[in-house]
Amino acid sequence: MKLLIIGGNGTIGKRVVAHYSKDHEVIVAGRYSGDVTLDIAQSASIQKALEKLGTLDAIICIAGESKWADFTELTEEDYDIGLKSKLMGQVNLVRIGKDYVNPNGSITLSTGILADDPVPKTTSAAMVNGGIHSFVQAVALEIERGIRVNAVSLGVVEDAYEKYRDYFPGHNPVPMTKVVNAYIRSVQGRGNGEIIRTYE
Amino acid sequence: MKLLIIGGNGTIGKRVVAHYSKDHEVIVAGRYSGDVTLDIAQSASIQKALEKLGTLDAIICIAGESKWADFTELTEEDYDIGLKSKLMGQVNLVRIGKDYVNPNGSITLSTGILADDPVPKTTSAAMVNGGIHSFVQAVALEIERGIRVNAVSLGVVEDAYEKYRDYFPGHNPVPMTKVVNAYIRSVQGRGNGEIIRTYE
Repeated sequence: MKLLIIGGNGTIGKRVVAHYSKDHEVIVAGRYSGDVTLDIAQSASIQKALEKLGTLDAIICIAGESKWADFTELTEEDYDIGLKSKLMGQVNLVRIGKDYVNPNGSITLSTGILADDPVPKTTSAAMVNGGIHSFVQAVALEIERGIRVNAVSLGVVEDAYEKYRDYFPGHNPVPMTKVVNAYIRSVQGRGNGEIIRTYE
Repeated sequence: MKLLIIGGNGTIGKRVVAHYSKDHEVIVAGRYSGDVTLDIAQSASIQKALEKLGTLDAIICIAGESKWADFTELTEEDYDIGLKSKLMGQVNLVRIGKDYVNPNGSITLSTGILADDPVPKTTSAAMVNGGIHSFVQAVALEIERGIRVNAVSLGVVEDAYEKYRDYFPGHNPVPMTKVVNAYIRSVQGRGNGEIIRTYE
């Protein structure tokens, strides 16, 4: 398979890249580094990168940001960050990316437990993750040529547990083997429109 | 109680208005008509209307739009309609409206079955509804002074069944008494952060 992994240099991305690099052709995309630069918040950047790469068997997006802050502090502009990046960035990746994916290929988006079980400071982050969950279910009804679109929704992952544990009291870290398996399941399973919830 | 019902002239809104008008003070808001004009897609319009009305016991929003079209036809600008209106319009209503709601009052948003169970042409509509579901759960963790925020998520309602039935094959119309009860439950129940799913 020829896979594009956006955010392949991140905490989760590098684990997924390590797995797929063993037996497949992996192209790592990042905003500032990687084999190709790609900023999902800019449609033109998505288009440009994909045009360069030719057709792919799978696109995995492990990217997208949103602003975390107290509800009383979040401004409309703060919400825009998540709307443009995590939400519409991933929607646009499917809109544009579907034309660069081979028949029966797959597109995997990334969300998180906040969509189902938020914590304080995440009105924006939860919202964009929840939006993607519903989008994935909706787009699966319409996407053509056997292409599958799924979302991997992760709890706090083991490799980032120390950084995030104070925001997620009592949450259990998700082992990285389970994290990688969630992406494998999306890419190599037969599911379409699935939210692959991987919570511990 | 003093209630503001945004979209109170719509198919669902007028039923909710009819119920509450019997024993309560109801202010109907609409984009072009009503006791006060209010366009949730414009923060300044929300602020202006609320400033005029003074404090309220409950705000009910039965408004917000999004573009329905085939996934292959929806442009970024089309998605913006839903992002600005149904999604951020309702988020901004809570952001701004919370300061105009009395202690232990409530804010009720409206979504729909598409968030959980979409149909074709609803990648945008499903997405914004799903975003609100997660937002409501998140904001409930932070909102102060006993204010409660819930969403009423409806299936195809009886009064609009003829108009929408072709989009929702096999869906059962939700009786209007159940529709009104969902809003009553949000306003007068004790729930906070609830998605009041009212499907048939």
